[in-house]
Order: sequence, then C-alpha cells, then structure tokens
Amino acid sequence: MRHIRSETVTNRLERHHRFLGGGTPLFYDEALHLVRGDGVWLYDDAGRRYLDAYNNVPCVGHGNEVVAEAVARQLRTLNVHSRYLHDGVLDYVERLSALHGAGLSTMVFTCSGTEANEIALMMARAATGGIGIITTEAAYHGNSTEVSKLNSVGLKRVSDETAEPTVRAVPMPARRTSFIDHVGAEIDAFAAGGVPFAGVLMCSLLANEGLPSIPEGAMAGVVDLVHREGGVVIADEVQAGFGRSGNWWGYQTSAFVPDIATMGKPMGGGVPVAGVIAAQEVIERFRSSTGYFNTFAASPLQAAAGMAVLDVIEGDGLVAQVADVGEYLMAALRAMDGPSAMGDVRGHGLFIGIDWLDDGGAPDRGGAHRMVEAMKSRGVLMGNAGPHGNVLKVRPPLVFDRSHADVLLEAFQGALADVVD
Amino acid sequence: MRHIRSETVTNRLERHHRFLGGGTPLFYDEALHLVRGDGVWLYDDAGRRYLDAYNNVPCVGHGNEVVAEAVARQLRTLNVHSRYLHDGVLDYVERLSALHGAGLSTMVFTCSGTEANEIALMMARAATGGIGIITTEAAYHGNSTEVSKLNSVGLKRVSDETAEPTVRAVPMPARRTSFIDHVGAEIDAFAAGGVPFAGVLMCSLLANEGLPSIPEGAMAGVVDLVHREGGVVIADEVQAGFGRSGNWWGYQTSAFVPDIATMGKPMGGGVPVAGVIAAQEVIERFRSSTGYFNTFAASPLQAAAGMAVLDVIEGDGLVAQVADVGEYLMAALRAMDGPSAMGDVRGHGLFIGIDWLDDGGAPDRGGAHRMVEAMKSRGVLMGNAGPHGNVLKVRPPLVFDRSHADVLLEAFQGALADVVD
Repeated sequence: MRHIRSETVTNRLERHHRFLGGGTPLFYDEALHLVRGDGVWLYDDAGRRYLDAYNNVPCVGHGNEVVAEAVARQLRTLNVHSRYLHDGVLDYVERLSALHGAGLSTMVFTCSGTEANEIALMMARAATGGIGIITTEAAYHGNSTEVSKLNSVGLKRVSDETAEPTVRAVPMPARRTSFIDHVGAEIDAFAAGGVPFAGVLMCSLLANEGLPSIPEGAMAGVVDLVHREGGVVIADEVQAGFGRSGNWWGYQTSAFVPDIATMGKPMGGGVPVAGVIAAQEVIERFRSSTGYFNTFAASPLQAAAGMAVLDVIEGDGLVAQVADVGEYLMAALRAMDGPSAMGDVRGHGLFIGIDWLDDGGAPDRGGAHRMVEAMKSRGVLMGNAGPHGNVLKVRPPLVFDRSHADVLLEAFQGALADVVD
Repeated sequence: MRHIRSETVTNRLERHHRFLGGGTPLFYDEALHLVRGDGVWLYDDAGRRYLDAYNNVPCVGHGNEVVAEAVARQLRTLNVHSRYLHDGVLDYVERLSALHGAGLSTMVFTCSGTEANEIALMMARAATGGIGIITTEAAYHGNSTEVSKLNSVGLKRVSDETAEPTVRAVPMPARRTSFIDHVGAEIDAFAAGGVPFAGVLMCSLLANEGLPSIPEGAMAGVVDLVHREGGVVIADEVQAGFGRSGNWWGYQTSAFVPDIATMGKPMGGGVPVAGVIAAQEVIERFRSSTGYFNTFAASPLQAAAGMAVLDVIEGDGLVAQVADVGEYLMAALRAMDGPSAMGDVRGHGLFIGIDWLDDGGAPDRGGAHRMVEAMKSRGVLMGNAGPHGNVLKVRPPLVFDRSHADVLLEAFQGALADVVD
C-alpha cells in the first residue's frame, strides 16, 4: 500500500527533483509532506498527526510562540551585522557562558554547526600551533571541505584522499584505558609523521557512534593526556547540548571539561544560530590569526532567538524534565517483552538508541529501517543511526513529556508485532 | 571630541571584548550602539538618527514588516529540515530560477555566503573532475578554510601557504584581451603544474576590487575561454545579486552568463539564507558526489524569508528604482565641485565607489577613513573598500530613494569641507 503515491505527491516529488536536484536526501519510503507543527506534533497535508520523536532543532516545540514572538519583535526593531555594539548579543553570551562555566566565557557566533566546527579547528590550530586533529571513527561533524575530512559516516568525504594526514580517528571507547591508549597511539603517529598535534574533536555523547556507554573516566583521561601532549579538546555539542542528555551539556553527562565547545542545532529553536565557546584568550588567538567576520552571525536576530530558547528551557524546567522522561522511556523500553531482534537500549535523557539485531545477533540495518517505517505508519517519527545504521534513534523535541512517551511506547509495541511477526 | 567615550560605552566595549573577544571587528573610531532601524534609518541609544548607506543585508529596509510577518507566520506554522517535502521551499526555487533564467534551474540552500561558495567549489570540481580554481587578485569570498584560500583582502588566509597550488589569481581587467590573456595564462600554469583545471570563481561586479569598470566583452570572453578549456564559471552574487546593480543579477550588468551562481547577504532580508543555483545536472553531480545535507538550510523559514524579500523587491519595483537612484546619485557626485582628493566615481545601481587620492594622485586610505568618519558625524553611514582601502563605498538598502540620496549628497558636501579644508 505505502508505495502507491497519489498524483499530488508524484508531482511534488518531480518538483523536488527539479528544484533541489535528484539525490536530495528525503526520509521514509514515501516522503512526508508536512504542513503544520505544534509542540511535539507534526501534521501532513492529509491532516494526519505524527508524534515527532526525531527532531532536535525545534527543541522547545514546533511553532513555539515565545521563539516566534521574540524573532518577530527583533526583526521589527533592529537586525544588523556585528560590527556595531549590541546589548542583546552580549547579554546572550553572558547567559550562555554562565550555563557552561568551566572558563568557557567568550563566543564566536556562526550560522551552522559546520561553521562552528570549522572555526573550532582553526581555533585549536591557532591556540597550539599544531595541525593534527584526532576524532572518533564513526563521526559526523559537518559538510565543509575541511570539516568533512573528519567524517566517516553520513556525508562522503569531499576530498579524494582516503587517508588524510592531518586527521586521525580512534575507535569508540571499549574500556577507559584502551580509549586513552588509542588516542595516545594516534598522537604518536602524528609525531612520527612530523605533523604537530593540535587536539581532539569529538561529540561529547558519541552520538554518531550510536550512543555507546562511555567507560567511567575515559573522556576525562583523554583530556588529561591531550593537555599533557600540548593539545586542546573540542567537545562537539551540536547534537548533545542544550539539555538533550538531561544535563545542560553532553560533556557534563560524559564527565569531562573541554577547552572549546561547539553548539548548533537546538540553539535558535529553528533559526540558524550556532557558535563556538572557549576561554577569552583562545578566542582572541583565533581572532587575531584570522580576522574572522560572519555577516549573519552575532546578529540581534540570532541573540533574540537564542535567548528565547534559553527562556523556555529554563522557565519550563526542561532539563530536569528531559532527565525524568528519558529515564521513564528507557526503563519502559528495557522492560518491554520485546523480540530477540531488540537489543541494547541505551542513551542519556531524550537521546536514546535501541540496537536492532538479526538472528545471529549482528547489526540489522534492514530490520531497523522496517521498524522506522512501521513506527511512521503508526504515527510516530523516529530515525536510525550508528555506524551500521541499525540503531533506532529516539531524539524528540525537549518538550516531550511522559504522556508522549506513552504514545511512543504503545506504537513501538505495535510496530514490533508488525515487523517481527 | 569623538574619542572621549562615556562610561556606558566603555562598559559596553569591555563587555564586547569579554564576551566576543578583543579583536572582534567594529566599525568607526567610536563604535556605534544601534537600538532601532526603520527603512533606510538607524537610531543609536542617544536617539541620534543615521542614514544607512552601508548595509545590504536588510535590502528591503530595516524593520521591514513584510519580512517580519512572513517569518513569524512560518515559525508559528512549521519549520523543519529538508528531509521532508515542502511546497514553500519548492515555490521559492521555482520563482528564483525564473528570475535567473539562463538554465539556472536547481538550487542548494545554505546558511551563509561562505557555505554557498564552499558548495560552488565542490560543485565545479564534481562537474569537471578538475581541482584548480582561478579567482581575482583582490577577492573576498568567505571565511572557511577552503574558501579563504581564494581571499587576498579582508580575512587573512587561514592556511600558512602563501602560494596555494589549487588556487590562482588574475589582476582586475584593464582591457578585454588582457583579462582573457591573464586567465589563459593561469589555466596554462595549472596545466604546467599538473593541476586539472576546474573553473573560475569571481564576484560578477568585482566588488572587492573597488567596482572597476569592466571592459565590454571581458567577462563573456572569459566564459568562452573557460568553457573551451573544460571549466565552469561561478558568479559570486553574494553582494551583487537581488537588484543591487540595477539589474536582478550582477552578471547581467557585467554581460555574461555563469554556469553556477552563489547568493547570500540580501537573500533573506536579515534571516540567514544563502544558496547556489545551477543547471539540474550540475546540482545532481554535486549531490551524488557528496550526499550534502545542511540542517538549517532549505527550511520553510528560509523559503518564507526569501519569498517575502522577492515580494517586496518586485511589488515595490525596487530594481528599477535602484537603477534610477543610482544614476541620480552618481551623476550628482560626478557633478560635485569636489576637491582634487575626490577621484573617479563609478558603480552600478546602488553599489557606488568613490576613489580617494592623495596630492600625488595615489590611493589615500587615511583620507578615505577620515571621510567615512566625517560622514558618520553628519549622520550618514558608509564604508571604505578596494585593495588599497581608499574607495568610499556607498551600498544602502535597496529602498533608498532620491530624497535619501539628497540627504547623502548634502552630508557629503559638508564632509568634504570638514576633511579637506
């Protein structure tokens, strides 16, 4: 049934290919045409309602009025580039800096997580004089030529080089000591190749690795090693930040303190806002070495959107709610009388992964895909991730509450029956 | 007088350095603290009004209600990433494509002009299999690691390499044949160095060169040569596009047809919207070679902001108005009984450059700076540009009319007296 497309959808797909190009990524076997969003709910053009358990950008909910009103007010008042002074921009960094603490006081705004990671690489290199960057094996950090050198999944590398001498990758942490040893070995490899070491860039939750459980002390141990070797540690908080993990920052959940943190996706509640935060001297080394300026960034609009998001997260106590609902949902999933295909359930807050396995216990990407489609048929949107694409990914807006979790759980029980039986 | 700062400004500057880092670029000897904008007018915290003859991003005017309302309505309705179908996004590309014509039918959205030029480089390389890019000597095309290899002014190159073998630059066109010869020589240099040629990327108005008069046929001649050599031509329309030159696109003013055009700054009327437009097959080669996805781009929000800007430009006949007011302003500046320091007045539409020269007729950056400060004192905001920083730059919002030009002209006459006498 679901492959029979109406005339309208076919025409819309044709227009999609015509105007955006064939090969533009679309979700689901039959692409969704969404027309409205409200909180955790999305509506398609036939009036069908979907529980959104996927989208992290509209973190304070689809159609959030606080964000819409703040953005409209700012656009009506003033929106200019950052070569003028603006209190709203400064107030926002002051507030965000206090939420970080740990000496992360000063910020460079950008328009995307990719731009934030571009800047973080430049910053690490300016701060250390090094060039070599260590990342994790199943990472995705952005789509520019330079940042895509760090990618191993998702976007193909832009460069033709399969081994990029300025970037090296380590496997996900199996044990504390082995993770530190892997990083140490890559630092040694840089030294052996005559490439001065600059630092480590990693998602603080290792999201694209499929949210593996991180052995206690593994991340902090890497930070110590990197500092001893003269490098800096960049935490990619583009997915992990702003309460996602039940703490404000993923690095708090993973128990380490980075020198530089990059932020994006949920930061502006849907408005393009991203940035890099670090100690003032790190930012100034970067600024003096590049003269960096970004037309759309550090604008009153970005600050207003960012401030509205913080207002809602703090005002509605969403970080604590995320921790509570995440625990509730994970406990229910673990307690579920699921089939053998349903493997490990793990995660932090409202960032949850569920392994999907074949009869032999190996990663089953096809099965995970069928589960995602079955959930969609039952009105719940989720995705799949991980290096093998077999990890069901639950990552809803932060306003997702226990009643929404119950809707998801009921659909999940039904989808298990659809797919496994 | 103007160097004596109030306590408030000092504190605000201290906060600016604290939260954004010392070295963050600011305009004017005493930075402006703007609090409100309305049309072509900006207001500081003391209630002082400035005529904005600098800002091109709020192209349909500061505080434009059509843009604010469209953005607020879209944020209240739906704003999601581009892996779902959305008619607003497709309608916007259809309309923009019709404004280009020339086979530029299909678009990749990005969040900044830098990201657009990143993508355009990848696209040129995917389309041709080459890598070598030719640009112009005084160019600025963006702030990423890869794009900054093309920069010679403004941002310092991020790379330590002074000669980047994948990028070569030509001087601005003095004569048609010499410009074509220069490009030909760099194509030959790539061939001699074993670097396959990919194409040319240039601002279609050569804005950072200081808007030189382009000899008739020079750009079209380069396009022919590049095509014969198997390359593609990228027009950077980030500054030049959307009516700025009195035509919709700078390449129309400079009489050539590019294979790829990049757009940004004015595109979203202040909302971060940018993109790359090309033939469908060029876009698809890029998409299949990269799997490109950009979280904030091609969103309903970007489309709504972009559509509102097109509504105002078309509805208010701004392209014709820009051509008229630009001619009026340039004629009045040329007719002005100015001092010998005031050299050539040139430009296209509302993108006007005025050379400032010392007694020996050489570029005078200091004098241009004093003129910019004197204009600010008289309530008019403008900038300086060009490879020697001595070109006074007039580039107001497109809604700038003849009465605004008269305000500028009166201030200019006064500033001449301030600076030259």
